Amino acid sequence: MSGSEFPSLADKTMLEEGGVFAPKFDKDGLIVCFAIEARTREPLMVAYMNAEALRLTLETGVAHYWSRSRKALWRKGDTSGQTQKLIEMRVDCDQDALLLMVEPQGDGGACHTGRKSCFYRAVEGGALAFRQT
Amino acid sequence: MSGSEFPSLADKTMLEEGGVFAPKFDKDGLIVCFAIEARTREPLMVAYMNAEALRLTLETGVAHYWSRSRKALWRKGDTSGQTQKLIEMRVDCDQDALLLMVEPQGDGGACHTGRKSCFYRAVEGGALAFRQT
Repeated sequence: MSGSEFPSLADKTMLEEGGVFAPKFDKDGLIVCFAIEARTREPLMVAYMNAEALRLTLETGVAHYWSRSRKALWRKGDTSGQTQKLIEMRVDCDQDALLLMVEPQGDGGACHTGRKSCFYRAVEGGALAFRQT
Repeated sequence: MSGSEFPSLADKTMLEEGGVFAPKFDKDGLIVCFAIEARTREPLMVAYMNAEALRLTLETGVAHYWSRSRKALWRKGDTSGQTQKLIEMRVDCDQDALLLMVEPQGDGGACHTGRKSCFYRAVEGGALAFRQT
């Protein structure tokens, strides 16, 4: 079923220069998504969508993902309150990655650790240093 | 060999709250990377690294990726001149995604189509609308 709700394009020029949304799902039926805060461009999180999550996201304007660990559809924020209102969705050149520009609801955060962003650590000399987000 | 150059952490608290860089590579030995322009936070591209690409990126301060289509290590910019100087690398909470904050060299772009960013199209009502990047 993966991707069956969306068209598929084999032609590279159409895929890259065309106006048809033809997201490429991987062999597990997933597409990687990068969510950033629309207003500030702060990187928030990486997650994955299957075709159903993508359809629901576009239909409802609220981000839905596929949890690879729980193997379940997941409307982000259902338990945390940190739903993500979709402001704009972009797709990359070869249509195998999505960028979600969102407005985080609830406390404005995205990370289950309680931080605003999942990217709160920098790699420094092989170790990790904490950063404010 | 995937990930063998880097430590592996099974403990969730250490993985999420610790100072040990223990990137989790997927079953293909890859980790997803999101590159943004360090100065402006403009989202540029999504690519993948294997352990060698990650090691080379950290050693040289220039982004190296693994091309899934060409199945080859790839120093971005070797042909285009669009090398990416690494300003800061971040890892997400469960250490299975990387954020590269880079300074694009050459013409300042990242996309092979000639645009600055790969995210030059927005999904609008099931079709794609072009955006300036």
